[in-house]
Parts: sequence; structure tokens; C-alpha cells
Amino acid sequence: MIPKPNQATQPLSKKRLRLWLKLLKASSLIEDEIRRRFRNDHDWTLPRFDVMSALSRAPDGLKMGEISKLLRVSGGNVTGIVDKLTEEDLALRVAVPGDRRAQLVRLTAKGCNMFAAHSTAHEAWIDEILGKLDENDIKDMMARLDRMNETLNDEKKNAN
Amino acid sequence: MIPKPNQATQPLSKKRLRLWLKLLKASSLIEDEIRRRFRNDHDWTLPRFDVMSALSRAPDGLKMGEISKLLRVSGGNVTGIVDKLTEEDLALRVAVPGDRRAQLVRLTAKGCNMFAAHSTAHEAWIDEILGKLDENDIKDMMARLDRMNETLNDEKKNAN
Repeated sequence: MIPKPNQATQPLSKKRLRLWLKLLKASSLIEDEIRRRFRNDHDWTLPRFDVMSALSRAPDGLKMGEISKLLRVSGGNVTGIVDKLTEEDLALRVAVPGDRRAQLVRLTAKGCNMFAAHSTAHEAWIDEILGKLDENDIKDMMARLDRMNETLNDEKKNAN
Repeated sequence: MIPKPNQATQPLSKKRLRLWLKLLKASSLIEDEIRRRFRNDHDWTLPRFDVMSALSRAPDGLKMGEISKLLRVSGGNVTGIVDKLTEEDLALRVAVPGDRRAQLVRLTAKGCNMFAAHSTAHEAWIDEILGKLDENDIKDMMARLDRMNETLNDEKKNAN
């Protein structure tokens, strides 16, 4: 690849901007690819996988609001997804003792099995898509992403 | 930071998965922060900035479909955004000579000025958020992201 002539002499802010745009592009390309594979190979959707993933980490169940918060999707969407999971006997709504209006959502055994299969496939896809990165690449990228996240966390702390 | 006990001995596929989850989280945290700053500091939205950004790179104008394709947002949303930009005299729709039904969308001079201001702010925000990454970090991350994107491009080629 021939670098653009002015690339080396760009100010650091422009380089950071290019890195951000590349990062954003990479993450949306990978997300699209995962979405496509869920649809084609499992007749499933990425948001449903994400909801099941959150539920799989909470054996005692989650309130609707907790699912929305964890996944940062709107309440309406979570309701639709949980309805669908319930219809297919993959999740169930259980009452909260002492709180007549609250409900917890949990995976059923059938849901746990399906999620285990999806989760194995998902890990294999990511392993393939990130296949050109070795231990060392991963360690370095993790450390740098942590440093980026630190800045955002510092700002949040200062804002509070 | 104390590493989780099993982290070093995890199979590579689990490490790639953790990297992917961290990458996805970092990019959505940054996007949220940018969205928040556009709203608070400029009373503006990220999708509007993205549409203006696409238009700013096409002085001859873009068809509605071309904007949707570039930004991968649905046609309906682009229409709403372009309506809004047109109402505020930031963009205009021009006829395509020889094609009665096609229209091109272009930024107005007012739109160009506003985009220049937003774009300067955006670059400064990213410079701040990615401020803990130096030249070397950026170069290394770019190279690794390119390698990830290569895998996806190879697959697309093989799929065609």
C-alpha cells in the first residue's frame, strides 16, 4: 500500500481521527458479519442473541429494565424480544415475591441449550474474523483500548 | 490491576472474543460520548453530522440512495434528516439534468460553514478521548485493525 503523501506529517489529532474512523468501521463491519451469520446459519437475530446472553449470566433472572440497561436497547425492543423468546419456550417470566407488579425474565432449559449452541458458534466466528491477530496483538490492543476507556471513565468521574 | 486467574491460560479463541467485546464496548462508549457532546454543545445530532459529512465530500451532490448507502442508515431516516437540513437552509435539493425524477442533495454555503465548525469540534473531541494514545500506539492499532479488515474483505471476495 502506498501511503497518502501527507499522512506521515499529519498532526496527531488527524491521526487520532483516522484511527477512530477505522475503529468504528471495523466494529460495524464485524457486527454486520455476525448479524448476517446469525440470520443465515441459525435463522436468529443479533439482538435476540444479546438478550439471551444477558439472561444467561443471570440465573436468578433479570427485570425488563435491567435487560434494557445492560444492552442499551429501548424498552419496546426488549419487550418484543422477550415476548418472542417466551412464545418459543426459550425464556419465561416469573413473579417477584413481595412485588406484585415486577417480573423477572429467565432462560428455560431449552433457552440455555440454544444459547450454548449460539454462543459456541459466535465464539468460533470471532475467532475466525480476528484470526490474523495473535496473543501479542491481542494483548497490545487490549491495553490500548483500556487506555482509551480510562479517558472516558476519568471524564465521567469529573462530570459527577 | 489483578488479572483474572485463568486469563493467561485461556485458549486464543476466548482471548479474541474478549478483545472483540472490548472493541465493541469502546466504540459504542465513544460514539455515545460524541452523540452527547453534539446534543449538549451544538444542539445537533450525530446522524445529521454524518449526513453533512458525506455531503461535504461530494461537492456535486449525492442522490438520496447514495447517502443511505454511504452511511448505512435506512432511507426513511435520511429523508427526515435531509428535510430538516433543507428547512434550515443547510442543504438543498437540485434536479439532475436529463433525469426528471432524480434529485441531488448538496450542502449550501451556510451548511458548509456549519459543518466546518462541527467537524473542528468533532476532531478536537476525538483528539481528547484518544489523547492517551501516541503516534506509536496509533500506528500499531491501525495496522492491526487493517489486518482484521483484511479477513473480512478476503471472505467477501470468496463469497462472490
